[in-house]
Amino acid sequence: MNETPEAVSNSVRSRILIDALPYIRKYSNKIVVIKYGGNAMTNPELKSAVMSDIVLLTLVGIKIVLVHGGGPEINQMLKRVGIESRFVNGLRYTDEDTADIVRMVLAGKVNKELVSRLAEYGGKAIGLCGIDGGMISAHKMEGDVDLGFVGEIDAVDTKPVLDTLDNGYIPVISTVTCGKNGEVYNINADTAASRIAAELGAENLVLMTDIAGLLRDKDDPSTLIPTVHVSEVPFMKRQGIISGGMIPKIECCVEAVRRGVHKTCIIDGRVPHSILVELLTNEGIGTQFI
Amino acid sequence: MNETPEAVSNSVRSRILIDALPYIRKYSNKIVVIKYGGNAMTNPELKSAVMSDIVLLTLVGIKIVLVHGGGPEINQMLKRVGIESRFVNGLRYTDEDTADIVRMVLAGKVNKELVSRLAEYGGKAIGLCGIDGGMISAHKMEGDVDLGFVGEIDAVDTKPVLDTLDNGYIPVISTVTCGKNGEVYNINADTAASRIAAELGAENLVLMTDIAGLLRDKDDPSTLIPTVHVSEVPFMKRQGIISGGMIPKIECCVEAVRRGVHKTCIIDGRVPHSILVELLTNEGIGTQFI
Amino acid sequence: MNETPEAVSNSVRSRILIDALPYIRKYSNKIVVIKYGGNAMTNPELKSAVMSDIVLLTLVGIKIVLVHGGGPEINQMLKRVGIESRFVNGLRYTDEDTADIVRMVLAGKVNKELVSRLAEYGGKAIGLCGIDGGMISAHKMEGDVDLGFVGEIDAVDTKPVLDTLDNGYIPVISTVTCGKNGEVYNINADTAASRIAAELGAENLVLMTDIAGLLRDKDDPSTLIPTVHVSEVPFMKRQGIISGGMIPKIECCVEAVRRGVHKTCIIDGRVPHSILVELLTNEGIGTQFI
Amino acid sequence: MNETPEAVSNSVRSRILIDALPYIRKYSNKIVVIKYGGNAMTNPELKSAVMSDIVLLTLVGIKIVLVHGGGPEINQMLKRVGIESRFVNGLRYTDEDTADIVRMVLAGKVNKELVSRLAEYGGKAIGLCGIDGGMISAHKMEGDVDLGFVGEIDAVDTKPVLDTLDNGYIPVISTVTCGKNGEVYNINADTAASRIAAELGAENLVLMTDIAGLLRDKDDPSTLIPTVHVSEVPFMKRQGIISGGMIPKIECCVEAVRRGVHKTCIIDGRVPHSILVELLTNEGIGTQFI
Amino acid sequence: MNETPEAVSNSVRSRILIDALPYIRKYSNKIVVIKYGGNAMTNPELKSAVMSDIVLLTLVGIKIVLVHGGGPEINQMLKRVGIESRFVNGLRYTDEDTADIVRMVLAGKVNKELVSRLAEYGGKAIGLCGIDGGMISAHKMEGDVDLGFVGEIDAVDTKPVLDTLDNGYIPVISTVTCGKNGEVYNINADTAASRIAAELGAENLVLMTDIAGLLRDKDDPSTLIPTVHVSEVPFMKRQGIISGGMIPKIECCVEAVRRGVHKTCIIDGRVPHSILVELLTNEGIGTQFI
Amino acid sequence: MNETPEAVSNSVRSRILIDALPYIRKYSNKIVVIKYGGNAMTNPELKSAVMSDIVLLTLVGIKIVLVHGGGPEINQMLKRVGIESRFVNGLRYTDEDTADIVRMVLAGKVNKELVSRLAEYGGKAIGLCGIDGGMISAHKMEGDVDLGFVGEIDAVDTKPVLDTLDNGYIPVISTVTCGKNGEVYNINADTAASRIAAELGAENLVLMTDIAGLLRDKDDPSTLIPTVHVSEVPFMKRQGIISGGMIPKIECCVEAVRRGVHKTCIIDGRVPHSILVELLTNEGIGTQFI
Repeated sequence: MNETPEAVSNSVRSRILIDALPYIRKYSNKIVVIKYGGNAMTNPELKSAVMSDIVLLTLVGIKIVLVHGGGPEINQMLKRVGIESRFVNGLRYTDEDTADIVRMVLAGKVNKELVSRLAEYGGKAIGLCGIDGGMISAHKMEGDVDLGFVGEIDAVDTKPVLDTLDNGYIPVISTVTCGKNGEVYNINADTAASRIAAELGAENLVLMTDIAGLLRDKDDPSTLIPTVHVSEVPFMKRQGIISGGMIPKIECCVEAVRRGVHKTCIIDGRVPHSILVELLTNEGIGTQFI
Repeated sequence: MNETPEAVSNSVRSRILIDALPYIRKYSNKIVVIKYGGNAMTNPELKSAVMSDIVLLTLVGIKIVLVHGGGPEINQMLKRVGIESRFVNGLRYTDEDTADIVRMVLAGKVNKELVSRLAEYGGKAIGLCGIDGGMISAHKMEGDVDLGFVGEIDAVDTKPVLDTLDNGYIPVISTVTCGKNGEVYNINADTAASRIAAELGAENLVLMTDIAGLLRDKDDPSTLIPTVHVSEVPFMKRQGIISGGMIPKIECCVEAVRRGVHKTCIIDGRVPHSILVELLTNEGIGTQFI
Repeated sequence: MNETPEAVSNSVRSRILIDALPYIRKYSNKIVVIKYGGNAMTNPELKSAVMSDIVLLTLVGIKIVLVHGGGPEINQMLKRVGIESRFVNGLRYTDEDTADIVRMVLAGKVNKELVSRLAEYGGKAIGLCGIDGGMISAHKMEGDVDLGFVGEIDAVDTKPVLDTLDNGYIPVISTVTCGKNGEVYNINADTAASRIAAELGAENLVLMTDIAGLLRDKDDPSTLIPTVHVSEVPFMKRQGIISGGMIPKIECCVEAVRRGVHKTCIIDGRVPHSILVELLTNEGIGTQFI
Repeated sequence: MNETPEAVSNSVRSRILIDALPYIRKYSNKIVVIKYGGNAMTNPELKSAVMSDIVLLTLVGIKIVLVHGGGPEINQMLKRVGIESRFVNGLRYTDEDTADIVRMVLAGKVNKELVSRLAEYGGKAIGLCGIDGGMISAHKMEGDVDLGFVGEIDAVDTKPVLDTLDNGYIPVISTVTCGKNGEVYNINADTAASRIAAELGAENLVLMTDIAGLLRDKDDPSTLIPTVHVSEVPFMKRQGIISGGMIPKIECCVEAVRRGVHKTCIIDGRVPHSILVELLTNEGIGTQFI
Repeated sequence: MNETPEAVSNSVRSRILIDALPYIRKYSNKIVVIKYGGNAMTNPELKSAVMSDIVLLTLVGIKIVLVHGGGPEINQMLKRVGIESRFVNGLRYTDEDTADIVRMVLAGKVNKELVSRLAEYGGKAIGLCGIDGGMISAHKMEGDVDLGFVGEIDAVDTKPVLDTLDNGYIPVISTVTCGKNGEVYNINADTAASRIAAELGAENLVLMTDIAGLLRDKDDPSTLIPTVHVSEVPFMKRQGIISGGMIPKIECCVEAVRRGVHKTCIIDGRVPHSILVELLTNEGIGTQFI
Repeated sequence: MNETPEAVSNSVRSRILIDALPYIRKYSNKIVVIKYGGNAMTNPELKSAVMSDIVLLTLVGIKIVLVHGGGPEINQMLKRVGIESRFVNGLRYTDEDTADIVRMVLAGKVNKELVSRLAEYGGKAIGLCGIDGGMISAHKMEGDVDLGFVGEIDAVDTKPVLDTLDNGYIPVISTVTCGKNGEVYNINADTAASRIAAELGAENLVLMTDIAGLLRDKDDPSTLIPTVHVSEVPFMKRQGIISGGMIPKIECCVEAVRRGVHKTCIIDGRVPHSILVELLTNEGIGTQFI
């Protein structure tokens, strides 16, 4: 294989564009929710690739909704303001001050930076968080362990997202919101992306991760499972194929499919342009849940 | 005068509502830009009054656009992260790190808090900053003194604001944006409000301040000048009536009127419900520029 | 209590406006049908108050539909043209000539006068009667006694009313119409208002009367019953609390609620601004049926 | 010529329908204002013919606006209520009471009767007068002689008429209105029709009269002048061809053409279906002004 | 009966126009599908009459869809290019070359000629065939006998037809289409018209034929059956009243009614203006199936 | 250079897609008129490439209008029906019969085949000719030599083309039309494409030809002139660089640019996917006129 686009003849270039045709058609005017996070967010080159991918997908008529996490910026800011992380049973406890910092970093820094990066590539975006237009209603997450100001979604009002799409902008969403009394809640970005995709009736939910996908043997990339039916998931959990940190991510996938999203994929955000490969080629990349 | 609403008879109540009629009609479906800042932003009771005022004005058919400054929250955060303010010729120098913190505090904390406070009073709002939808284009402010990442507005694209109004939301705007290379600029909120009002062809621009208005003798509240024609301003400056910190504020007023805003007012944000009094009574409050 | 609006401070004025907020929100964009008649129609000051109330309610986003009776003007004209009222079993018999005069007075005098009075207060109205756009289909009322050209409603076509609202006008409706052969029918205004409210799916039907509301002891105003569930009405009739002239009025209320109107009220039209008090305060006035 | 439609074969019937084709096309979606008055309004058979003509014209896509006078009904009612006509220099003086009766008869009787007659033929109409929606602004007519409450038009707001057409109804207009202080004004129906046609940019203004048209010799019907250029009118006045009662009528025609109406016609309302002949045949009838 | 339109007085002309009123109202804004073929297509005078009829019907607000067959032009062209017709069991076999010629003649000659003829009469039309916009999906007709490239309809996408009507044009449709592999299919025009009418929910399907209608005794025109209920058809077949070439035509009528078309008629295309007589008079012509 | 798309890595594939981004953005929602003819129309592989190119361009948001010539199919059919070509001064004379055949072949065969080929690649198209919707008005071309039924364009009504685009279809246009008396005219496809592009205000007019572009030395492909300003054309003609058959083609380009088309290109239709290369790469291909 040759590895530079410059070495590709016009004829082959054209064939490659033409090859994308059925996929462009498939997603034309459909909503695709991309959960953006991990290496693809911290590595500058990968970030540039994601930004240009999203703008391209938007231009060819796909309605992209970008949901993002916070990456290391939250930890940096917490450290900078001198908040020490408290852990309960190995899980981070989010006190009120922390929740406030999280909101500020997500909605005021990461979100707006993404909006301005998309603009560099010619994309017009609007940054939103769960508070805007009352988009995400949430309450304190209940569970065995009190994690503080971590929220659980009650409902998603898709109007602000759909309005933004209809007005011709890419919605970029931070997954913080506030409760009935104005208290700030941080919400897991995978969970929020899954629920937003479901409420929007998205065609596809793409979770960008730092793994190749679901591997039968987690140490052997050649054992990648390209497609999983959501009904197989319980069995795969019992077998141990799905385990550890993969469990909550895959549950987001399963939940989205159950609520009506046609397909969700876990893709390798470390591979440049993995979103394009997933959406516009017949290979796909990573693991899809249907 | 009696001082509790409870003591007012239904008949008088009705007359008071009726008295507001010509003003409601005057502003019906018109855009009013409110620059929110100062005491009205830090005092919790005043803040509550402003929030309910804005929701009421929205409900009676006035299209409110809320532009806010940062109040003391910026300084608190700068202090907390250990950034010391540097001054050049008495003006604060904004280095890149500071600009970043300002954006984060304005767009991620103050802005979203306002959106959630409006929601408490039944208002549906969307928080935006100059970056969203490419609303505010800016470049580094030029001048005798280099103030760092302080921006000067090139152009305002009103589409994101008008879309937000058309979709039925109150636009809440932080006056930070980014330049052509993605560099963050902080923009003076009065200046930004003035320009946004002009580009929107607003009916009225209301600047909330911590003074009673323009006083002929600044130590004597009874010398309040209720109305100033913008053509009188140069003379008033020469006379010293307009001086010091009033100069830039009043220049924002003059500029807005010159660019087509019907009227701008400097009102006393320390008086509860001063916005309502200004917009819905025949007294007005503070000083209007026409 | 102080009794002049002038004596009320701006601060209290603002609180009074703010107090109306939840009610404005409640009725925002909803249809309220007001049956206008009695003293509120003959007393010039009360009339002015009603006109300004309606214009205010319209401006704050409530869709008012005004249905009116004829007041004493019908009798004056009948007398003037020398028609003597004929009574059958104590009820007025409407012969063809009388029906014609009634139509002329209602649709040509009372209706157009109301339209021009509303215009004085800045309201834009269109006067309609049951004939316009085929709004009200009716046939001769059947009963033990032949009352002549008194009509019973077959159907209401709400299109002319909704069109008028959509075009930005207040519909002012005279309750006369014609039958299949062009014969003129006079229709009881309370009954017509009730049916129109029902067909429009109105939020509220307000009947202006010359009584304080439903009194447990009709001679003691302190026994006002503020709220009646329509299911209680039969029992109240048996008890004699609802009796005489109140019966048909209350039946209009019950019928409207049964057909889907959220609430109907009998209010005291002799109290100035009683409509505003009913719609925009938490006290209400008179008796509501739910 | 045979004189019954029954005697006409299907083939000839079809040809007659086809003959109307170019005229239907010409007026398709255009506004035609018909001033209705005279014999065509008092003779029941002529009235029926006019009603069915208007409904047919509406159905084939012509936007008919019907402006009517009062016919003898005003005099009958004035007589019935005992108002004696007062004349000043041979012109009727309209006192306040008379103006009130005129409004009542026009807007409440004649207008609504026309609406209900059109309904009999399947037409959906809405009756309006100059007061509705503030359609006609007027002031007291000034002149050598004080005629009392006779109005002169200041302005016509066509919105209520255009709304009515857009909503699918035939606007039927009484030419009474009120002044700034609510005083009632009676307006000459020819004048009002001419001005309304002009403001609507009508294709044609048809004045129904009780004469054959403009005759060169007023006693010889064979001298009918079919077409007059408005520039010829002054000369024809000097020649005495246009004289007496024809002068104001023809001035309405001239004024309408000058203000942009493509053509106005004076047609013989005594001939059944003269409107159809004028609008849908190549003969025309009466005199057209262009 | 007099036989020239010129001999008809204006008064009778008007009455004839008025007589059409209820029929125009009945079909106003409704879709009527006309299957055009036979003598009405080959005789120049009849053709002119049909063209002007269609334009008139369009102008009075009826939505005409014109479906046409090929008349003798197909045979002429086949002969001209030297294709000899092959018959199987008495039915013409359509080989690939023939199908190609049929498409060319129908979609390129007959169709475009009709569009240009309609334009002569002031009608704006767009010519379509089953291929355009994927309107008609078809497969090879299966049966006892292989007839070659004769198609059977799978589905009709009415969007291209409705778009054409909405854009203000008369759709003129050739009943050729292609299959999944691009192979050309000729489709029986009666069958296609029946199916298109059904899918459009047409008010009426008019089949122009060279017979007077369904006759009880096929040699006696006085035995015309004006109305047939589709439930009577099986019995009429058994009786032999419906036989021979009438069977497929009447099955198209029955099928259209069963699929929701309100009424279908077989009319005599040899009578000039038979469409107008059918649609705009109370006589009708030919036989209607309901 | 590698010559198969399969050999290209996903990463390079993605970069190639991304490279197309600025061009997709440039043409997004803009109209591009493609004149299709020559080898690209006769060679099946080139034809397939053009079809898929057009569908891709449509999907990525470019509004393609396809104008086609007749290729060799006209001559084949003329030969088949035995029409011998007559030449006048070396130019083909088009008699009435020939014009009829040309229309039939273009509008009934070539046009519909293109529509059905586009459908194979997932494109929805509607075939039109100049007659449809009265799109092209023409008269007999005047000149030194009488060429028979060859037309010259009077006017183009773009409504049928714009409607087709708005309805979501690709307009495929045959350049035949008819004159005022229904006579058929054949119009040069380059000329028609140029005029249609101008009337549509197209962004680009692409003429597919069988040459590499404009060569400085017509025998040396390395002398291709990539860009010509239309003002240079007269000089180039005098120099002989533009000569022979190139003259009319280039005049179409010049004319289109003069009438407002942003750019026209002569591209080499013999190169597969030359349209894609021209529109979606930074190389372009052939010669552009600006």
